[in-house]
Order: sequence, then structure tokens, then C-alpha cells
Amino acid sequence: MKINGHAYRTIWPDADGHSIHVIDQTKLPHGFEIMQLATSQAVVEAIVAMVVRGAPLIGATAAYGYAMAMREDASDVNVEAAYQRLYETRPTAVNLRWALDDLKARLVRLSASERFTAAWRRAGEICEEDVEICRKIGEAGLALIKDAHLPGKTVHILTHCNAGWLGCVDWGTALAPIYMAHDAGIPVHVWVDETRPRNQGASLTAFELGAHGIPHTVIPDNTGGHLMQHGKVDLCIVGTDRTTARGDVCNKIGTYLKALAAHANNVPFYVALPHTTIDWTIEDGVKEIPIEERSPREVTHMTGRLPDGSMATIDIMAPGSTALNYAFDVTPAHLVTALVTNRGICAATREGLMGLFPERG
Amino acid sequence: MKINGHAYRTIWPDADGHSIHVIDQTKLPHGFEIMQLATSQAVVEAIVAMVVRGAPLIGATAAYGYAMAMREDASDVNVEAAYQRLYETRPTAVNLRWALDDLKARLVRLSASERFTAAWRRAGEICEEDVEICRKIGEAGLALIKDAHLPGKTVHILTHCNAGWLGCVDWGTALAPIYMAHDAGIPVHVWVDETRPRNQGASLTAFELGAHGIPHTVIPDNTGGHLMQHGKVDLCIVGTDRTTARGDVCNKIGTYLKALAAHANNVPFYVALPHTTIDWTIEDGVKEIPIEERSPREVTHMTGRLPDGSMATIDIMAPGSTALNYAFDVTPAHLVTALVTNRGICAATREGLMGLFPERG
Repeated sequence: MKINGHAYRTIWPDADGHSIHVIDQTKLPHGFEIMQLATSQAVVEAIVAMVVRGAPLIGATAAYGYAMAMREDASDVNVEAAYQRLYETRPTAVNLRWALDDLKARLVRLSASERFTAAWRRAGEICEEDVEICRKIGEAGLALIKDAHLPGKTVHILTHCNAGWLGCVDWGTALAPIYMAHDAGIPVHVWVDETRPRNQGASLTAFELGAHGIPHTVIPDNTGGHLMQHGKVDLCIVGTDRTTARGDVCNKIGTYLKALAAHANNVPFYVALPHTTIDWTIEDGVKEIPIEERSPREVTHMTGRLPDGSMATIDIMAPGSTALNYAFDVTPAHLVTALVTNRGICAATREGLMGLFPERG
Repeated sequence: MKINGHAYRTIWPDADGHSIHVIDQTKLPHGFEIMQLATSQAVVEAIVAMVVRGAPLIGATAAYGYAMAMREDASDVNVEAAYQRLYETRPTAVNLRWALDDLKARLVRLSASERFTAAWRRAGEICEEDVEICRKIGEAGLALIKDAHLPGKTVHILTHCNAGWLGCVDWGTALAPIYMAHDAGIPVHVWVDETRPRNQGASLTAFELGAHGIPHTVIPDNTGGHLMQHGKVDLCIVGTDRTTARGDVCNKIGTYLKALAAHANNVPFYVALPHTTIDWTIEDGVKEIPIEERSPREVTHMTGRLPDGSMATIDIMAPGSTALNYAFDVTPAHLVTALVTNRGICAATREGLMGLFPERG
């Protein structure tokens, strides 16, 4: 998507054919810097330091890192060693594992001299595939926004956390339909939940919407219910980290509260997802999905910019008090109006998903 | 309530008989400082600077300030002038106006030589009346916590914002039952909503609960739904700024979302209130109560403590993005399990309120 009128992806190969560029996301939203990564070690460090973030982008970056490792040492030993080094950067990231497995299965069948070229090409394909998935989600969701658009009116859309292009290669998931609607000339305005404790809404979502020129307003996570009660939200659309076979949705903590408010106020609540995040082995998300507990420090401390432009981290908590930090919650399927996938739109039910993914039946 | 084992009120007269002490709440939670106020001008400045905050405490402080003004100049002219100066400190504070009106009605009937003594005594009575109101709310709510207490188990209570003793003279409203339960030996643990954007939960509620020795955990405002979904909340109790004649409740933004989650998960949702906050002229809170919009800066900037102990304000928002800051929302009465008042407990309905306040019928 665009930054200052220039179209970007979050990752792209250099003309040299063996290094990549990424946006240094640790600098966002206060700084926009491009970082060049030329070695597998640089890629490892970039993933660990969260220079790149978001499951699809981590997978794509790791794939390029694996290719670089093959340029450095294409031996059988390094096919295994590089896999391990890259896998250990973020071992819980599903796409990371998927991308590395995909490449490794190809590399083991090739001779050393073929490995770099094949891996580099495949990394590029992985990026293109992600863009295509997001584009299809965007097209499916665009139809919903078009339906919600009344002539002469702005469509007000609420989103939670960051399910935008910064976590993917381009377009994003929940934000893809919004970009497409904006680019198609439909007037949209986005209510951006701040998304405590890590503020991905106030920093990343606000940044990428603003950079592309999409009208938006950041709101405290407490505000969405009031807005829906007063008819100021036409639809909600969020991403998901994991969707169960019956349509329960695990997403950033607080999503559930917005889904309750949407349901109570007859506001459509859509969840955008690539098919890869559907966990066909699970039905009851509330009972079966373990919720990651993260450091209380993410709640008690906050990082931002001082008046002199430098960055600082402050403690906002009463001394001696502790905090609890669940990263995700589960929204039961009955609160989800529809799932917006790269295969189209379906009801958040087993039957709905089976209609789009009959091969799972 | 207690701080480091010592019982405090938020305001108390000095032995000199003409000055008062207050806790400087602008220093909380990182510093605990007592401030002596000896002139009506000092009181005006303390209210404007939010050294004191919370409707009942502002009213009590202003009453003492009015008395000090009568010591400085008990003329008819100053009865009016001091009223105006004090009223203009926080013109939307209902208790402030009520306290000043109460005193003024007495002062105009007295000679100049009687005014200071009468006003000083009446200010003390206003404090005692507030303590008594909160104590009665506490006793009514204590019965609910006792009912929720299973032998050998801790009662987990969720609250939003700060409805504690720091905003009153003692006890608080929503927190009064919690203090009484704790003091009565019932094991309680409080989930404290951080309460963005002003973080009154993370700073004030966490501070006062911790200082009194009550187990508590601060959570992002996004977390309560997940906790209720998983049976980790036995009851919710919050305060209110304004309650309508049919039991709709206007309280800090985000209260509504917690009420929705409580309702969806069969968790009792109680609202504690002094009778003075009931607005008998209004029925439909969602339609009839205007919601204050405060500065976006409260959302975009945050104040806390740097590692060196000094205080700093940081900007947490994507540059160029704007924020919207509604201060309150309205929880419809059907989501409120019961109202906890200084006259006892009632259903959040017109009939319920009439049962406690038959003189309004």
C-alpha cells in the first residue's frame, strides 16, 4: 500500500538478486526506515528483534533468509542448520514453520548448486501467494462494504488491533477490504481501537491507514460500545490468529467485547482470514484454545515519544501493583456475522466453512 | 481507608480550626503527599489543579474553601464573590454546586460575625454526611459480596475506573463494599480495569486498594470479557456519575462493554451510587444524557515515571492521526443486576428505585 504516495510492500528483493529490503517496524509509527538484509544472520536478527512482525511477513522473511543461507553454504548440513536457526527465531509462528518446511522439502531434493536459485525463487512465490490471498480477502470484503454504502454517506468501519498490510506482504487481511473500498472511491472512515496493551491500533493501524490516505480516528478500546449504541459504526471487521472448524474466532484480546457490542446493537461483525488460519482440529474455541499470557510489563509500561523527539518508556502503574496480560480472547461463532476468506464469504458455522472448503468434509 | 497501616480520609481539618489537609492526588500513584490549604484562594487553586478530584470530595473541599473565605471577608459582597470563585473552578461538578448552594443559603441568613463558624461547622457536616452515605452503600454491597462468597474461596470482583475513597471523603462508592468485605475477613481479589484513556484504574484504584492491603490485579480494559467468559469474575461493581429514573447508568467510558460481557456470561453487574446522583428528570439515558467529549490529548499522550524516577509525558500515537475521547457511556438498565444505594439495594427499574425513594412517587 502507499506511504506518502509511493506504493510499498513490507518486503521486496534487491536488484542484486540476493538481498532484501524490509520496513523496520520497530521504528513505527514515529519513524519510517527501510532496512536492507543481505545475510541469513541479518534475517535471523531482524525476526528476533521484531523488525518484521505479523505471521505472513515473518514467514516470507524467513523464506528469503533460508535462500540467503543457501547462498552462503548450500551443504546438506546447512539445509538443516539454517532451518533450525530460522525456526528458533519465533517458534510459535505458524507461517514461519510452514514457509521453512515448504522450502526444506524442496531443498533436500536438489543438488547444492541448485539450492540458492530455487530457494530465492520460491521465497518470491511465497510473497506473491500471500499478496494474492490478501487481495482475494479484500475483494470478498469489498462487496460487504459496497452493500453497506448508502449514496452520499461515509461507511464507518471499526477495527481492532492491526490486521493490515504491515503484518503481511501487502493489502492485509481485515484492512484489505477497506483499502479496496477507498481505492474504489467509496468514502470510508475507520474507527481504530487503540488496542491495549501493545497499542497496535494507535501505532500500526493508524500509521498505515494514514500513510495510504484513509480517514480514521483512534479511540480508546473502551469507546466502541458507545459508538455502536449511537449508530456511529456501520460494520466491524477484524482479523484472527486462529479460527475453529465451527467458526469461533481467536483474535487480539478485546475483540470479544466489540463482538458483544456489535451483536447487541445489530452492527455486522466480520472476521477476515486466510484459509491457513483455520484450525480444522478444533470446534470449541473458548474451551480448546489456550490463551497466551504475556509479560505484565506490556501493561505496566508504555513506550512513546518525548517532546524532544526521543523515545522513552514510562511506568504508568501504581507502585507495587501487578498486572495480568492475556494476549488473545475467543469470540464465539454466534457473534460473528460472517467470515471473509480468500475463497469468499461464509457463515461462521461448520456448514458455512464446509461450503467454501468442501475438501475438508 | 488505610495507607501504610495508617487510617486516612481524603480531607480533614487542621487543629488550628481554619485550615485543612488534603492528599495531593496529582502526585498519585507515584508519590503520596499531604497538602495544607489555609486560604480560599489555595482551595480554588487545588480544585482547578485537580489536587482533589471526585464529585463528593470536590464538594467537601469547596465547602471548606467557602468557610475560609468567610474568615477572610465575611461581607455580603464576599458571600456572593466567594461562591462565584469556587463555583467556577469546576462548573459541571454537581456536588460542588450542591455544597456551595447549601452553605450560601445558610450564610445569607446569618450576620457577618457568625458566618465563618457556621460555614466551618457545616463543611465538617458535609464531610461526615458523605462518609455516612458511602458507609451505607458499603453495608448494602457487603451483603452481596457475602452472598457470593463460597467457603474457602476468594471472591473475584471486577471494577472499572475509580469509584473509591480517593474521590470521596472515605470508603468510596463501588469500592466501599470491597473494603468492608476485606475488613470483615472475606477473601476478595479485585480485577482493576486500567480505564483508558486516563488510567484511573491503574493509578488510583490500584493505589488505594494496594495501600489498604487488598489483593488486586490491573488488567487492560480489553481483558474483562475473557475473564468473565472463563468464570474468573464472581461479580462486577462500578460507580456512576448519573443514574436515570428507570435505572440507566452513565459511568466512565467502557462500563457498557463490561456490562454486556457480564450479561452474556451470567455475572452479576452491580452499580453503586449515592442517592444524589439519581437524575429523576431523565428516563432514557442513551438518548437523553449528553456525553462529554474531552481532549484527544488524553488519548494520544500518556504520563508516567521514567526509570530515573522523574515524570514524563509521551506521545503514543501515529503522527498525523487524531483521536476521539468520549468520557462516559450509558449502560441500559436491563444490563444492571441491581443498584446499590445508601438506602439499600434495588432493581434497576423505576419500580425498584421508587421502592427505596417513595417520596419521589
